[in-house]
Amino acid sequence: MRITLRVIGIGPGNPRQITLQAIDAFADVDVFLLLDKGSEKQSLAALRHEILSRHAPEGHRVVEVADPPRDRNPYDYRSEVTRWHAARAALFTDVLRTELPAGGVAAFLVWGDPALYDSTLRIVDDLSAQPDLDLDVEVIPGVTSASALTAAHRITANRVGEPVHITTGRRLADTPHGADANQIVMLDGDLAFRRTARPDDHIWWGAYVGTDDEILISGRVADVGEQIAAAREEARRRIGWIMDIYLLRKMH
Amino acid sequence: MRITLRVIGIGPGNPRQITLQAIDAFADVDVFLLLDKGSEKQSLAALRHEILSRHAPEGHRVVEVADPPRDRNPYDYRSEVTRWHAARAALFTDVLRTELPAGGVAAFLVWGDPALYDSTLRIVDDLSAQPDLDLDVEVIPGVTSASALTAAHRITANRVGEPVHITTGRRLADTPHGADANQIVMLDGDLAFRRTARPDDHIWWGAYVGTDDEILISGRVADVGEQIAAAREEARRRIGWIMDIYLLRKMH
Ligand SMILES: C[S@@+](CC[C@H](N)C(=O)[O-])C[C@H]1O[C@@H](n2cnc3c(N)ncnc32)[C@H](O)[C@@H]1O
Ligand SMILES: C[S@@+](CC[C@H](N)C(=O)[O-])C[C@H]1O[C@@H](n2cnc3c(N)ncnc32)[C@H](O)[C@@H]1O
Repeated sequence: MRITLRVIGIGPGNPRQITLQAIDAFADVDVFLLLDKGSEKQSLAALRHEILSRHAPEGHRVVEVADPPRDRNPYDYRSEVTRWHAARAALFTDVLRTELPAGGVAAFLVWGDPALYDSTLRIVDDLSAQPDLDLDVEVIPGVTSASALTAAHRITANRVGEPVHITTGRRLADTPHGADANQIVMLDGDLAFRRTARPDDHIWWGAYVGTDDEILISGRVADVGEQIAAAREEARRRIGWIMDIYLLRKMH
Repeated sequence: MRITLRVIGIGPGNPRQITLQAIDAFADVDVFLLLDKGSEKQSLAALRHEILSRHAPEGHRVVEVADPPRDRNPYDYRSEVTRWHAARAALFTDVLRTELPAGGVAAFLVWGDPALYDSTLRIVDDLSAQPDLDLDVEVIPGVTSASALTAAHRITANRVGEPVHITTGRRLADTPHGADANQIVMLDGDLAFRRTARPDDHIWWGAYVGTDDEILISGRVADVGEQIAAAREEARRRIGWIMDIYLLRKMH
């Protein structure tokens, strides 16, 4: 069964931060597939709704696919991951076969850019390996949350000629010396910079960047570190979930 | 004199890879400022022309500003850079004062995203420091060439949880061990991976990504390294200039 599977980056929160190419890619979609993951659900819901209602074609269908159950503390980690990937691929194959005509078009909407800390392309790889699907995969890039952050603060990611290191809160402490001039930190539930940064380093932090709830704080780590932690906690309580990102720059 | 200065990311080559936010930002622009730098000139010309003719308002003006002359081998490097920045800021201040009404809007169009290896925001910083200008600066993020590359190859930038290191050809050899799992290399006139990569590393290379001239090659470095070098040289001769980028992934 031949199917076009489109992975469409929709930008990181502001519904105007979608590209014309992404909008073009909506035109002939039969089914939009939504990955239903707890935290993503809340943050994506509003943006996704606005984007689908504005740009999706008449008569499109939306199918939410919940991840199959997964053992988070298995005896054998690798074999559990393999099993779970196979179960997920089987589930999506089923959905595609049920929901799509031959030659149909299915699309995943991805927050930001599909290349950055997102599992959709890994699912698509697993689907491509399914013997009874003949997939034509298309990927549409999107504006990343890193670009939204730097634009909101009106700064560059790098000083002249310097590298930019994009990492996660969990890995921040592992960045080797010499790679840490400019770090963009995502997926950090714990503001890990408080354990790694020097007082004179500069931080540009943003939560819900590009949305009506946007919060921006910047300054020397020693000056604004606690203010960021307090603002983050207050916002998380008030809104019920948080997404935030920061650029940490070493001063020399 | 109060002026709005907008720095607008227009995406990395495909004219459909511009955002709705960027198009919105065109609507009330009085003057588009074009930085005239040799190599950029050729690559930007076609995209800029198409984008301005589609999205710029009736009656807008375009002003090309050539960089002031610069001594590339000065006796005192720092003071020459300072002098040159000041000369450039004075030149732009002049253009803004001449071309714009008070309360007017000027815009720079920036290739890709303004945060990544682009000097426009540094010029804007110098302008903000000019005593006789009262600038309101706005920055619109764009899709980066890194995202265009990974989308064209339908790959992610990172494997699960890994960092992504964005660097230049000149700095590639300096990336420390532990930061080099996934490197995105820009501004590389010399395919520096040929001196740093191991034979088993994987490379995804792209030239003129997103344009009609797009070339994509990927594979083990040992298998495709020479093919990339030959394709790059052939294209550079045929087209007269080249822009290329690659993702280098360490295999383990
Ligand atoms: C699963 S990753 C997805 C990243 C996405 N693919 C991108 O290109 O930005 C989610 C993380 O992105 C960051 N993020 C995404 N959108 C954001 C926004 N609007 N404001 C702040 N952070 C954001 C946060 O660090 C969050 O933990
Ligand atoms: C001065 S930098 C500007 C980068 C831009 N601000 C961005 O966000 O992509 C120019 C470099 O970007 C890369 N580049 C930009 N557009 C490209 C494209 N369409 N195809 C391949 N490489 C591109 C090349 O590595 C080139 O040397």
